[in-house]
Amino acid sequence: MVPISLPARDIPPPATISAKAQAALAEGAVTPGPIWPPADDLEAWRTAVAESRAMWEAVSAPILAAARASVQTRPIGGVTCHVATPTELAKGDEGRVYLFLHGGAFVFGDGAYAKMQGALQADRLGVTTISVDYRTPPEHPFPAAPRDCLEVYRALIESTSPARIVVGGSSAGGNLAASMVLMALAEGLPAPAGVVLLTPEVDLTESGDSFRTNALLDTSLKGPMPDANAVYAAGHDLTDPYLSPLYGDFAGFPPTLVQTGTRDLFLSNSVLMHRKLRQAGVEAELHCWEAMPHAGFGPFGSGDSPENREIDDEVLRFIRRVT
Amino acid sequence: MVPISLPARDIPPPATISAKAQAALAEGAVTPGPIWPPADDLEAWRTAVAESRAMWEAVSAPILAAARASVQTRPIGGVTCHVATPTELAKGDEGRVYLFLHGGAFVFGDGAYAKMQGALQADRLGVTTISVDYRTPPEHPFPAAPRDCLEVYRALIESTSPARIVVGGSSAGGNLAASMVLMALAEGLPAPAGVVLLTPEVDLTESGDSFRTNALLDTSLKGPMPDANAVYAAGHDLTDPYLSPLYGDFAGFPPTLVQTGTRDLFLSNSVLMHRKLRQAGVEAELHCWEAMPHAGFGPFGSGDSPENREIDDEVLRFIRRVT
Repeated sequence: MVPISLPARDIPPPATISAKAQAALAEGAVTPGPIWPPADDLEAWRTAVAESRAMWEAVSAPILAAARASVQTRPIGGVTCHVATPTELAKGDEGRVYLFLHGGAFVFGDGAYAKMQGALQADRLGVTTISVDYRTPPEHPFPAAPRDCLEVYRALIESTSPARIVVGGSSAGGNLAASMVLMALAEGLPAPAGVVLLTPEVDLTESGDSFRTNALLDTSLKGPMPDANAVYAAGHDLTDPYLSPLYGDFAGFPPTLVQTGTRDLFLSNSVLMHRKLRQAGVEAELHCWEAMPHAGFGPFGSGDSPENREIDDEVLRFIRRVT
Repeated sequence: MVPISLPARDIPPPATISAKAQAALAEGAVTPGPIWPPADDLEAWRTAVAESRAMWEAVSAPILAAARASVQTRPIGGVTCHVATPTELAKGDEGRVYLFLHGGAFVFGDGAYAKMQGALQADRLGVTTISVDYRTPPEHPFPAAPRDCLEVYRALIESTSPARIVVGGSSAGGNLAASMVLMALAEGLPAPAGVVLLTPEVDLTESGDSFRTNALLDTSLKGPMPDANAVYAAGHDLTDPYLSPLYGDFAGFPPTLVQTGTRDLFLSNSVLMHRKLRQAGVEAELHCWEAMPHAGFGPFGSGDSPENREIDDEVLRFIRRVT
């Protein structure tokens, strides 16, 4: 197949996004992307995980101290969870539960990061958020993570109606949200009211067009990450639907919101997932932000751009609609 | 603002699209894009228009002869229209009207092309389609085209309930669909039941990120087209909401479907339009196809890829839902 030959180009931040988003892109242009160890050097991965944990311990401490939500860490279904309860719930939001699965390339983000994400989601959305501290590789590769999430869900629906639960996640967490719900349906468990897939890493074969077209253009994830995927997959076939839910069967899947951006390395993941859901007759909505990289503007979505907040608005509207 | 410096790259068709779509991208990679005369050389534009008309006369003849829909050309509201009636209407589709505004960079596509588009839409969707043969520059620049479309709508709603009408268009026609409905609302006319914006050219300032990121990657429109826009605008401010509806006020706008592709030069137009509609509280849905260029796979969407047909499926579902 004849490729398209693109010349070298300079791509400035567009004028169509907020000043904060423009600044985030300009900063990202000169910030190196994450460096992944080779898949077979598990010792290097352990070191990277330890460094990441220490970094997030430090970064999260003031954020957790400033959070309005109160966060309790306790096991649900035998799995460590961080339950973040907003100080004040808007009328009608009582009883709604957002089961949130954090990102981090399947390898990073346990402990302090997972706890911080629970608090941030609860603060931004105003909905009780359970952030699952699922197990991670190298010690606990696939299928530990989706199984952990499934056990939390199984225990949760004993006391909370699935009609009040939305399962969501970002990046690797978007993968786990989709695979966990596929696992639940395969077991005959009731579906949650809805699923939120934020820039989801639903295809570990990285077959989508945007893995090439948006490489380097995405300031969060500057290119494919086969090594992280291999450490997580630990030898399993990458097209296993629980590893790459894009290859799953979505008949009977609950209403789903898919979020992405035009510069997202996972743009193709997101639009392919949306089309797959539509083809299966699922009520699925796609939201795509102009020039947005993976996980929003700013380092891993931490920026306070209006565009990042608009994602929260759509997610909250969706949660309220389906629960 | 620091730009992102992208190296030269070869981008092959991805494996995530159909074989026909892959072949269309490979063919597009070696097909030169359209060449536009300079904006101030109206004589060259007249020649280009005459050549285009002759080409479409020839191309459309066998397509119109093979069309299942019967097509009648007659004035509505004083404007030439091509009314395409499907031979058989599915139960429930009687009385539904798709008011369709063809593309062609505002300059091309009158006459035979407009007639062919009416027949093709009626055949694909199975819904009675009125294709408006709006006036074009250089003889009839802005605002002739949206005013023509408005007059057709004004006349149409005397005999057909607006609740049974969806206004849609592709490319420049997507611009006209949006601007015509904005004009209708400003005049106090009732809104149609819905609006379909297929890869819409809603921003003649071409401010969106994809005018740079998808230049050359889009095999239909290989780059910005300021000359065609200037010939159409004829000196009017390009940010006039009737010239560039992206700058309009969409409060009270009817439900809208927006279609695009990840390689679409108008990807940013489409996602910005979708967000603008959502911000105005409009019920708007976005559909984006993997690696799809402007107007679908194949020369100006003429290919018969499954992905192109999937657009028709979504449009028909939308028309049936809102009418």
